Amino acid sequence: MKKKRQLPLPAREHYFQRKREKKVLRSRLQSIGQQSGTLIHIGEKRVEKAEIKAIGYDEGQAITLVVKDAAECIALKERFGVLWIDVAGLHETGVIEKIGEIFGIDPLTQEDILHTGQRPKVEDFERYLFMTFQMLEFNSESGELSQEQLSIVLGPGWVITFQEIPGDMFDPVRQRIGSIGSKLRKHKADFLACSLVDAVVDHYFSILEEIETRIDTLDAELMASFSQETFSALNFLKRELIMFRKAVWPLREVIGSVARDDFAVVGDMVEHYFRDVYDHIILVIDTVEVFREIVTSMHETWLAGVNNRMNEVMKFLTMIATIFMPLSFIAGLYGMNFRNMPELNLSWGYYAVLGLMVLIVVGFLGYYRSRRWY
Amino acid sequence: MKKKRQLPLPAREHYFQRKREKKVLRSRLQSIGQQSGTLIHIGEKRVEKAEIKAIGYDEGQAITLVVKDAAECIALKERFGVLWIDVAGLHETGVIEKIGEIFGIDPLTQEDILHTGQRPKVEDFERYLFMTFQMLEFNSESGELSQEQLSIVLGPGWVITFQEIPGDMFDPVRQRIGSIGSKLRKHKADFLACSLVDAVVDHYFSILEEIETRIDTLDAELMASFSQETFSALNFLKRELIMFRKAVWPLREVIGSVARDDFAVVGDMVEHYFRDVYDHIILVIDTVEVFREIVTSMHETWLAGVNNRMNEVMKFLTMIATIFMPLSFIAGLYGMNFRNMPELNLSWGYYAVLGLMVLIVVGFLGYYRSRRWY
Amino acid sequence: MKKKRQLPLPAREHYFQRKREKKVLRSRLQSIGQQSGTLIHIGEKRVEKAEIKAIGYDEGQAITLVVKDAAECIALKERFGVLWIDVAGLHETGVIEKIGEIFGIDPLTQEDILHTGQRPKVEDFERYLFMTFQMLEFNSESGELSQEQLSIVLGPGWVITFQEIPGDMFDPVRQRIGSIGSKLRKHKADFLACSLVDAVVDHYFSILEEIETRIDTLDAELMASFSQETFSALNFLKRELIMFRKAVWPLREVIGSVARDDFAVVGDMVEHYFRDVYDHIILVIDTVEVFREIVTSMHETWLAGVNNRMNEVMKFLTMIATIFMPLSFIAGLYGMNFRNMPELNLSWGYYAVLGLMVLIVVGFLGYYRSRRWY
Amino acid sequence: MKKKRQLPLPAREHYFQRKREKKVLRSRLQSIGQQSGTLIHIGEKRVEKAEIKAIGYDEGQAITLVVKDAAECIALKERFGVLWIDVAGLHETGVIEKIGEIFGIDPLTQEDILHTGQRPKVEDFERYLFMTFQMLEFNSESGELSQEQLSIVLGPGWVITFQEIPGDMFDPVRQRIGSIGSKLRKHKADFLACSLVDAVVDHYFSILEEIETRIDTLDAELMASFSQETFSALNFLKRELIMFRKAVWPLREVIGSVARDDFAVVGDMVEHYFRDVYDHIILVIDTVEVFREIVTSMHETWLAGVNNRMNEVMKFLTMIATIFMPLSFIAGLYGMNFRNMPELNLSWGYYAVLGLMVLIVVGFLGYYRSRRWY
Amino acid sequence: MKKKRQLPLPAREHYFQRKREKKVLRSRLQSIGQQSGTLIHIGEKRVEKAEIKAIGYDEGQAITLVVKDAAECIALKERFGVLWIDVAGLHETGVIEKIGEIFGIDPLTQEDILHTGQRPKVEDFERYLFMTFQMLEFNSESGELSQEQLSIVLGPGWVITFQEIPGDMFDPVRQRIGSIGSKLRKHKADFLACSLVDAVVDHYFSILEEIETRIDTLDAELMASFSQETFSALNFLKRELIMFRKAVWPLREVIGSVARDDFAVVGDMVEHYFRDVYDHIILVIDTVEVFREIVTSMHETWLAGVNNRMNEVMKFLTMIATIFMPLSFIAGLYGMNFRNMPELNLSWGYYAVLGLMVLIVVGFLGYYRSRRWY
Repeated sequence: MKKKRQLPLPAREHYFQRKREKKVLRSRLQSIGQQSGTLIHIGEKRVEKAEIKAIGYDEGQAITLVVKDAAECIALKERFGVLWIDVAGLHETGVIEKIGEIFGIDPLTQEDILHTGQRPKVEDFERYLFMTFQMLEFNSESGELSQEQLSIVLGPGWVITFQEIPGDMFDPVRQRIGSIGSKLRKHKADFLACSLVDAVVDHYFSILEEIETRIDTLDAELMASFSQETFSALNFLKRELIMFRKAVWPLREVIGSVARDDFAVVGDMVEHYFRDVYDHIILVIDTVEVFREIVTSMHETWLAGVNNRMNEVMKFLTMIATIFMPLSFIAGLYGMNFRNMPELNLSWGYYAVLGLMVLIVVGFLGYYRSRRWY
Repeated sequence: MKKKRQLPLPAREHYFQRKREKKVLRSRLQSIGQQSGTLIHIGEKRVEKAEIKAIGYDEGQAITLVVKDAAECIALKERFGVLWIDVAGLHETGVIEKIGEIFGIDPLTQEDILHTGQRPKVEDFERYLFMTFQMLEFNSESGELSQEQLSIVLGPGWVITFQEIPGDMFDPVRQRIGSIGSKLRKHKADFLACSLVDAVVDHYFSILEEIETRIDTLDAELMASFSQETFSALNFLKRELIMFRKAVWPLREVIGSVARDDFAVVGDMVEHYFRDVYDHIILVIDTVEVFREIVTSMHETWLAGVNNRMNEVMKFLTMIATIFMPLSFIAGLYGMNFRNMPELNLSWGYYAVLGLMVLIVVGFLGYYRSRRWY
Repeated sequence: MKKKRQLPLPAREHYFQRKREKKVLRSRLQSIGQQSGTLIHIGEKRVEKAEIKAIGYDEGQAITLVVKDAAECIALKERFGVLWIDVAGLHETGVIEKIGEIFGIDPLTQEDILHTGQRPKVEDFERYLFMTFQMLEFNSESGELSQEQLSIVLGPGWVITFQEIPGDMFDPVRQRIGSIGSKLRKHKADFLACSLVDAVVDHYFSILEEIETRIDTLDAELMASFSQETFSALNFLKRELIMFRKAVWPLREVIGSVARDDFAVVGDMVEHYFRDVYDHIILVIDTVEVFREIVTSMHETWLAGVNNRMNEVMKFLTMIATIFMPLSFIAGLYGMNFRNMPELNLSWGYYAVLGLMVLIVVGFLGYYRSRRWY
Repeated sequence: MKKKRQLPLPAREHYFQRKREKKVLRSRLQSIGQQSGTLIHIGEKRVEKAEIKAIGYDEGQAITLVVKDAAECIALKERFGVLWIDVAGLHETGVIEKIGEIFGIDPLTQEDILHTGQRPKVEDFERYLFMTFQMLEFNSESGELSQEQLSIVLGPGWVITFQEIPGDMFDPVRQRIGSIGSKLRKHKADFLACSLVDAVVDHYFSILEEIETRIDTLDAELMASFSQETFSALNFLKRELIMFRKAVWPLREVIGSVARDDFAVVGDMVEHYFRDVYDHIILVIDTVEVFREIVTSMHETWLAGVNNRMNEVMKFLTMIATIFMPLSFIAGLYGMNFRNMPELNLSWGYYAVLGLMVLIVVGFLGYYRSRRWY
Repeated sequence: MKKKRQLPLPAREHYFQRKREKKVLRSRLQSIGQQSGTLIHIGEKRVEKAEIKAIGYDEGQAITLVVKDAAECIALKERFGVLWIDVAGLHETGVIEKIGEIFGIDPLTQEDILHTGQRPKVEDFERYLFMTFQMLEFNSESGELSQEQLSIVLGPGWVITFQEIPGDMFDPVRQRIGSIGSKLRKHKADFLACSLVDAVVDHYFSILEEIETRIDTLDAELMASFSQETFSALNFLKRELIMFRKAVWPLREVIGSVARDDFAVVGDMVEHYFRDVYDHIILVIDTVEVFREIVTSMHETWLAGVNNRMNEVMKFLTMIATIFMPLSFIAGLYGMNFRNMPELNLSWGYYAVLGLMVLIVVGFLGYYRSRRWY
């Protein structure tokens, strides 16, 4: 009874080999026993050295710089209409501290930046606005969702972003900064912050599309066979959706608050754009919920299919068994060795028995047909 | 074991052939990387050229015009008591831009109009009110629900509607505009907007009726057989209901807001009519929920039926098997070739064994009858 | 395998014959395309001619009149302390229009009265209060719930009720109006309105009692047999509970609003009585929820019973099969025709084999007993 | 297949004999058609004659009286610092009316006292506070929960309690009143009311403990056998929990309101004690929820156990059947009577066949072992 | 059919031996009938004698004292910037009373401290703030969660903590107090209270990590075998999660209130830190919910696996049975003893039958292969 069919989904082996390191919880053990207020990076050390990129622009110009030393930022601070400093890598707490000092970022905020695995939140410090949430990445090969914390500090004339590793979904934003006359160039720092958040949310949509493709693949496979592998892949997908929702759900309040409340550093005009982003997040959440319901209904289909298949198997067994049991009994009957069995001596006895057997077979088949068993 | 019975529902083949192109998510990929604020149509290009129809009316007159060029609208603008411009087809962004310019529609609103797959919303721009939501269409042959975004811009004296494709559920409204002395003719543009929304919601009701018919068909079929096909059709219906709810649920807030809040362009009188529409939407949502519960209970009935049928099959197999096994054993016993088996030589031995067998059959049948197995 | 047992519940045949005409949705198709604001009756035409009964009373007198022509009501209008006009039958829109004109009922209210299948609601028009909700009737023979829309218009000194068909649960109220010195006679029209609502809610309780009886019957039956019929009856009951809840749930807000808000035509004293009615409605809703949970748990019991029964059947089959298979094998073994089988020639061979068989039977029976299979 | 094991739980026979008279709904039929405002006792007549006990106390004294005639209460009214009149038995409406008259209790309150089966509520009448809720009693033999309505009227200097039958959980309170220097003696009537409510809530806790014991018993039994009886007992317990929650849930608002709102007859100090009682009620509700979740998970364990057991049975049957079927076939093969079967004449033929059979048995056993079937 | 595989989880034996003493409810029976306001310890007596440790510190110094007699605390009261008195053991009510007297703790608070098994709460007494909640401990060997009530009284310049037994998760805090220049040393008593709460919440995270490890272990085991033991362990885990949530859920409101409301003894600065703790609690609750969903999906996987395995078993049985039944029948047929059976005399008859049998086997195997049964 070897299995020949293979689940053409990468999820399977991942699931069975259980190599995945991703956890619901990022370990916070390092921080336990630590002085609250001391800058410590909580999370795995993902990169060796923090990369700092600065982009300064206003309507007329747009300059991209690679910053070697955090201290260089002082020089940049008020040189541009809008300054965007992007820090990738949180392990070097010195860098964050230095930047924090230059831009007047509260130590409490610095802590929040360093502690990855946070729940999304927004905090208003009057002179700047602090937002933190999770960027998601869907590995379409392994079917796994990975997350990376993004912190955005929005001050008057500057935006600082902190990511865990280099590489992000902000290239379109950078491109738009680069093109003369783009809307981004005409607006202030708050619009940049909004564009960045929007880019993250847009990426959620593209993940949702990949998940939808996956759901469709699994659905097609479900129709073809009701194997345990499909079920496991389905369950794996379900968990990824649970993770997705956990990451995205609190964003609702966060962006809702930015769009609604009057924060000093966010203009009325940009609040409107944030309201747009808010609508998108609601749409993301709605869609995740719909996907969860669809996965649940696929789960039920699977179970129903297995039940049904069992039913088929049992009907088949019952048909075969109930037909052959009487036949074998009759054969056994005339195989008895009693001395006095008159039928055995009849010359047409054998043929009569054969005829009886045919009658039995026909009778059972008719009965099963009448009950629509085949 | 060929299947003879066919599910007389169109849903089945659609489901199995998986031809459907409809998605939960409309692709937003095109827009990613786009400058927020640039007019781009998000969604499939459904028609080649936008169709613009203008209907101008007041108590005395009612004129229908086909507008070739969006610019012609300037001439129409203040010529009638109420002007309704209906744009079908969103691919030509120039048309939307032109109309937007003429009627003073904010670029942000123009963007919202072009981005299909939006969550229903209402936005007040003081000089006009913007509403967007989904018109639904139920293909009773394929059992599929399709959606089309409708945007309504209500200004003082004019209503502009934007649809994705020509063809809508507004013919009754047009008819009423055409008939002298109708209520529509006596009211302002806000009443027209309300009538349009009402027509969309009325169409939801007729879809619900079709869905109810479908539920009844499936229910009848369920009673007749517990096939996997019925189950799949049931599941398909469940998903359509999930989609329906997703499209309709947010309308609750949208229309509720119009009915409740004081918007400049909506009169008190018309607010009352909107409250009526609001009641209808609540009724639609309630009904969708009831349908979902009914479909869930049909699902349970299906599972219970399959379980029960399996039970019947197993009881039947058990009855046949337990009766014939002892009989075959006895026959086998006297088929042994031992030299010394005294019973074999008794002249009445064979008849005694036959009698014993009849006793066994009667005993088992009596036992099963006492346990109500048949 | 004929079924002898019959489900002694009327629900069954109803369910299987599917004769029921009742729908979740009352057809609204007639109204689609109709001018909002035109008086049209939405719903089936249930009676040929509207019956109008007027009861006028104050502390000293109480007179019941059958009104032939709606216009006669003008004469009655201010003749009594309290005037109750009861209209049964909504098909004659002229009657409603006439009465509306006499008592100053808004056309919008008139529309709401005519459109049956409404969601319960209350609306304040300053000079009168309009309430509409569903009267329920439980047919204890068929186990079906039917609903009829009741609209109450409460003005200063008069109450007008609109029902779909003659026959209601208001006889006790009429009786109390008839008896001198009753509380009703001492109070104003608002108390009459409250008494009417109370009568409807009291009827909900008697329906709940009938449903409880039904639940108990089904529960007893469930214990006796786990037939598919019981399950279907259970499911049917579940749907009736879903319908019940749908009809009653919104009443919570309606009566809550009357009891809480200051409506011009409802006195403070009577508000207190409405608060009582409100408490009763909450109790009705709570009870429906409890019934739903009980029906769900009965459903689970059914499934568990079927599972358990299958288990019993399989155990029985396994016991019989595992005992007779080895026996038949041994019999078959010594039925072989090999020339050289020494055991066959032993004079005690046959008896040894019989002994071995007895041992096998005893061994298996002991094993099954040790595992508590019987 | 007789059942030898007995479920050592009293619930079982109760459940199967279905003798219980308790209903979710107490019949309200008597009251239908009654004049609202007429004093009528709704509920079964539980005692022949109302028992009235009066306890008067202040810091110095504490006197217990049995009151024969309700009119005697006038004499007691202002004789003590605190007067507690406890009325057990609601059938004599005259008694309630008389007491109501003496203490100025509104007729509406009197009605509420008489109508048992009420939803818990609190009502403020300025000169007194009226609370009504359900005392619960758990019959640990039958596993049934019974309820009795308690109404407390708290006036300035007096508390009147109305119960349906004599016998309550207030003995500890009475004892504390009797002991000089107790806190009760030092406080006013509001503290007495609070102590009474507290006694009722404390009794909820002791019921919860009994239910927990029951859960543990059932859990242990579940591990031992997966009988239908255990399942029924579990379901019975589930329903009792549903009833418990229904009775206790609304108390949350009732006591919350007393603790939070400013009622004339409740002092600030005592409000604090009510807040304590409120915390206890929340704890009761939390615990009921936890119990419900535990019972649900036991239900799942039961189903899983039955499934698993079926699996075991089928594996056993499959092993026996698949081993003996080939063996019997081989035996049958060489039992054929063909003239020309060379193997039959081989002197070692019989032994070769026996050897082949042993090989088959070993092969199958090895295969099953490799698949961990035994 | 002995079981060889052992569940390598400690939970199992605990579960089956049911030795656990932990209850959802801590017995409150002792307190029933007690005078509210009398100091009585509710809960098991866990330690013989209360241990009191005092730590006094300010920026310059930090002194740890073991207090023998509660009365000694008077001397300590205003000697330090911050005084932390830690009482472990609640059985000696005299100690609590004495300390209460010295620091002006209300008798009501003292009662709350003594009554273990409370729902988490916060109460403001103006001159101090009282918080009580559950410290959790996860025994990773037995897989059991145990809880211990912690009460924190925060006054101006002092913090008093009451635990049930010595031993806690506060060592890191003590260490930080000990180190010169630490943030704790620079802040007031409110910061100490916050650090203590934070330490408790941090411990929740480490428990969650242990639970995640457990979930992963069980998940891996689930993939390997679908034994009843795994299921029981899963269910046990589920219950622990229910308990966890019950203990942690109300903390949300408690800490939320401290972070939000203006309490006299909590500075604005420290409120910010409490907000941080609040975020952590939300994260804990979110994670518990995610774990519950994961455990539920594991439960479904288990059931699906059992179902699937049954399916496999039945398919195997059906294949073997359906192949051998016809073969045995044919063998039986030619084992009949009719005198006139022409086939028996054909010299190639035996070989023809053997050939037919091979054909049957090949046919069935082909059929099963075509249906993908193996």
